[in-house]
Amino acid sequence: MLRRLLRKNDSKILMLILDGLGGIRSAAFPRTALESAVTPNLDALAADGICGRSLPISIGITPGSGPAHFALFGYDPLDAHNDVGRGVLEVTGTGFDLEPRDVAIRGNFATIDAAGLLTDRRAGRLPHDEGERLCRLLGERIKEIDGVEVIVMPVREYRFGVVLRGEGLSPQVEETDPQLTGRAPLAPKPLSEAARRTADVIAAFVERAGEILKEQPRANAVLMRGISSLPRIEPFAERCGLRGAAVAGYPLYRGVARLCGMDLIATGTSIREEFEAVRSAWNGAHDFFFVHVKKTDSCGEDGDLAGKTAVIEEVDRLLPLLLELKPDVIVVTGDHSTPCALKAHSWHPVPFLLHSKVCGSDGARSFSEIECDRGALGVFPAVSIMELALANAGRLLKHGA
Amino acid sequence: MLRRLLRKNDSKILMLILDGLGGIRSAAFPRTALESAVTPNLDALAADGICGRSLPISIGITPGSGPAHFALFGYDPLDAHNDVGRGVLEVTGTGFDLEPRDVAIRGNFATIDAAGLLTDRRAGRLPHDEGERLCRLLGERIKEIDGVEVIVMPVREYRFGVVLRGEGLSPQVEETDPQLTGRAPLAPKPLSEAARRTADVIAAFVERAGEILKEQPRANAVLMRGISSLPRIEPFAERCGLRGAAVAGYPLYRGVARLCGMDLIATGTSIREEFEAVRSAWNGAHDFFFVHVKKTDSCGEDGDLAGKTAVIEEVDRLLPLLLELKPDVIVVTGDHSTPCALKAHSWHPVPFLLHSKVCGSDGARSFSEIECDRGALGVFPAVSIMELALANAGRLLKHGA
Repeated sequence: MLRRLLRKNDSKILMLILDGLGGIRSAAFPRTALESAVTPNLDALAADGICGRSLPISIGITPGSGPAHFALFGYDPLDAHNDVGRGVLEVTGTGFDLEPRDVAIRGNFATIDAAGLLTDRRAGRLPHDEGERLCRLLGERIKEIDGVEVIVMPVREYRFGVVLRGEGLSPQVEETDPQLTGRAPLAPKPLSEAARRTADVIAAFVERAGEILKEQPRANAVLMRGISSLPRIEPFAERCGLRGAAVAGYPLYRGVARLCGMDLIATGTSIREEFEAVRSAWNGAHDFFFVHVKKTDSCGEDGDLAGKTAVIEEVDRLLPLLLELKPDVIVVTGDHSTPCALKAHSWHPVPFLLHSKVCGSDGARSFSEIECDRGALGVFPAVSIMELALANAGRLLKHGA
Repeated sequence: MLRRLLRKNDSKILMLILDGLGGIRSAAFPRTALESAVTPNLDALAADGICGRSLPISIGITPGSGPAHFALFGYDPLDAHNDVGRGVLEVTGTGFDLEPRDVAIRGNFATIDAAGLLTDRRAGRLPHDEGERLCRLLGERIKEIDGVEVIVMPVREYRFGVVLRGEGLSPQVEETDPQLTGRAPLAPKPLSEAARRTADVIAAFVERAGEILKEQPRANAVLMRGISSLPRIEPFAERCGLRGAAVAGYPLYRGVARLCGMDLIATGTSIREEFEAVRSAWNGAHDFFFVHVKKTDSCGEDGDLAGKTAVIEEVDRLLPLLLELKPDVIVVTGDHSTPCALKAHSWHPVPFLLHSKVCGSDGARSFSEIECDRGALGVFPAVSIMELALANAGRLLKHGA
């Protein structure tokens, strides 16, 4: 229905996502990071705009980053087409353009002992440049297996991507990561007859990589995860009538945006670099800017309230860099909550604010979980955010006479 | 599910709809009309009842009056069966009983220049009695075209209705209104082979009407819009177990109620006349009264805050005429928002109150957008209002043991 109501205009929409933004109060953390943070700019937007709590998937469901971002971009996160494998996400996030026939795999460099048992699933969280060097090594030595082209690329630190390119491949192969140390990596088991050859190619890759890496002090093995192929996703430009730009320092988020057909804007990983990247691209052809701040989530996962608070304060301090661009619609929210009290993603609805000239205002006086509970939007599905943003941008026609 | 749970009793439900009731605060309008209005009676109902914000269609979607009213009456506004053409709505609203084979058209009297180009799509908003006179003229001179019976009826001012009655007609014909002045009216193009004859009949009607009207100073042409046929709609009496009565001064709203199978109560267009009409009919066989106040919407569309405020205050002042009837359930809301700040229908959820002996109460202290945000109902779909009203009327059984 939505596409029928779309109309074009010159408005620009800015969506600022603070990953894992939401928190909860607990005995150990009587205030959330967002409550603790001094955020005059966000508070002013909240007070003058409309607020609520966005529900990434549904009540009680803790989302991963992939489905949570699909919901933010207006795609039903439970729709099978949007159930994109982690391999596809990571590889696409590096800027690599997958073909429909490709199988994409997320790899971990790992450490095994003399008996072949895992002692570290992340090879001591290998530094990024070391990961890059090892990827070059693998890429030079493994270019083809059984007629299948093999492409190896660094992602971040201990994580890399592998693309298998050839005819007749299938992603229906089990991961080799046993998820626990003290065990041997698993064999890549085919989940269907059609995936037998692909499983054999993956097994051969694991074996050859082990030989190449065997003298490495830490990264002497690889784990193959998120074995997947490109899903069919309706382009964001058609679905929402917007030419989208993604500014995200981390691969996975670039990957989701790319899969939706957004253009990736070159950026560093600091908040300032990301905001400057938005400014550089602002006067181009894009109608929609997705800006992703990662570290709120990382601090949440570490239970680091002071760190998460500081990241939010840094966003607030730099926010004028974005506000000066005078976006017609500004959305600030998270993809999900990552409460310090839980040190993990959680199901709690996420503080949300939207500001435009026509949004109205409500009872929320500042930007925090509890003030957003006073907002006019209530608890609402994240998948509706794009419709709300489009309405505020004057880009949706009336339904019916 | 609902029908299985219905039970009868002697309760009466009153639904008072203030069209376009909701507003938003903006720089130019720091308070909404509902906030500005002095409304002691509505405030008392809100304080003693339950409140919330009703969502006519879904988040971000701006509804037309037709789908918005279907939602109020408990019908899914996105259901194809409920996507009723404007011609059907307008004609039904005059009290005309359409047959399934009929094609109904909404006509505009319009002005064209010597070159046949439109100079006014509404013939200077022709006065109602002048429109009535011209409808009589057309009706006397055009009774039949190519074996198809033609019935012309006044609606309001420059708007009239045409019914084509005969076998083998189809509503799949394009409108003739180009939506802009300076252009010639369009030909009524058939959208399917089956609609060719109907298109020819409409073209002949337009031509003969042009001849009949050619000496008129303003209304010298007609535009044919909303070409449509009767949809199949489950009767309100079966769906909700209520015999419904509609008190609405304006045709379109009578049309929706009639299509749902409600009885139309004769009324004038003033609020007092409408409320008196309810009083006259109250002790009859009806269980449900829909009362529609139009002018909140008209004032909203004009950006006339003082006017909209005055209409709301008039409703409040006259409300005792309805309260004296002691309805078991009272619902007061709008079909959608029409903020003065936007001068148009909008997507913003609508202030809602329900009062009954068993509704409970909540944090809303008076009747306004921001107080309704404190209500126990939150933001909820308008299509659920009838179920809530039926529950409060004691007309819904328990689901399951």
